[in-house]
Amino acid sequence: MRDAHTLYITAGSGNSFKPMLVLRQRGDAGPAEKVRIRSVDVLAGETRSASFLALNPRGQVPFLVTADGKGLGESNAIAWFLSEGTALMPAEPFHRAQALQWMIFEQTALEPNISPARFFSHIVPQLAAEHADDFLRWHRDGCVGLAVLDAHLRQRPFVCDHGYSVADIAVYGYTHLAGEAGFDLADFPAIGVWMARVRAQPGYLGVTPLLSA
Amino acid sequence: MRDAHTLYITAGSGNSFKPMLVLRQRGDAGPAEKVRIRSVDVLAGETRSASFLALNPRGQVPFLVTADGKGLGESNAIAWFLSEGTALMPAEPFHRAQALQWMIFEQTALEPNISPARFFSHIVPQLAAEHADDFLRWHRDGCVGLAVLDAHLRQRPFVCDHGYSVADIAVYGYTHLAGEAGFDLADFPAIGVWMARVRAQPGYLGVTPLLSA
Repeated sequence: MRDAHTLYITAGSGNSFKPMLVLRQRGDAGPAEKVRIRSVDVLAGETRSASFLALNPRGQVPFLVTADGKGLGESNAIAWFLSEGTALMPAEPFHRAQALQWMIFEQTALEPNISPARFFSHIVPQLAAEHADDFLRWHRDGCVGLAVLDAHLRQRPFVCDHGYSVADIAVYGYTHLAGEAGFDLADFPAIGVWMARVRAQPGYLGVTPLLSA
Repeated sequence: MRDAHTLYITAGSGNSFKPMLVLRQRGDAGPAEKVRIRSVDVLAGETRSASFLALNPRGQVPFLVTADGKGLGESNAIAWFLSEGTALMPAEPFHRAQALQWMIFEQTALEPNISPARFFSHIVPQLAAEHADDFLRWHRDGCVGLAVLDAHLRQRPFVCDHGYSVADIAVYGYTHLAGEAGFDLADFPAIGVWMARVRAQPGYLGVTPLLSA
């Protein structure tokens, strides 16, 4: 399979979920290269193994290795790359910039708060007590971010004016897992309406069945 | 000037510097719309004024208002938008994704550490003592990020394989100010070589004269 990209993911991760949902939803218009999926067990230390670090010295997933051997990190950059040439990629320059704005917002205001709070309360709860102070900060800062997103989504059906796009997938990645991180999404009604809209898109599949497949 | 975008910036900010450097370096190939610059005094509270919050409810600069009245936040998204159609924007999809990877890295691994450390040690040093614990974290995490960037730049002349791009401008924004944040950039020699390369690009102008002009 020299003509295939390889996407390394880990089960249950909101960041790994993003490029997987792009692959589910991009339809037949995507790039010619197929994408094979390799599941890596972060909790078992596989991302710190010599073989994985040789691929990606940062030891992070998701990670993409192109058919010609080039590496690409950052979940939102991978999702962007896999969306090029499909209906998920905004065609207008301003809409692309809007998509980027919210994909950067996701990585700075949502993911850094929701992801660790979810990890220590949902995935390794035996370690949660060591992070009591961190939880206060994650919940405080995460609620600020969710309130900004909620206000934005009160005005429009999707994250950017293009319509449903890679930016919705990126922002949805951890937002839809916020309940598992101890956030009450009932406080953010426009996010709830938007999440239902995302789930209604053709090809949608949730994080768990998708990643355990 | 209805045919002009308006870019709101603040003097001395690494984030505001990025779209300003794009405007200096994009040449004549850029979008038709002119960009007028409005300087906002953050320290004097102008980003919290009712008139500015009506433009951008998040109260942040840089912020762009397009000629047709649409708002765009996030320094790297603004830099991206202003680079569309110019030599600063990678033409190849993989190169665009690489650019995004490092622009997201900049906002998650560099800016959140270098920017506050610089703010409290260089801009409002009278408040630095209140942040002693934060400085330890900013310097520890910032050095991790700078080491990743240094290793990357040992392999190549610019951040992405396209050549000099908007990603170099975005990453340079705060990296070149790290000395003012208490980082010793002599520890990262490949970054030093790359910064000299950025400064040698046509149209380069440093953060202070550019923003005080």
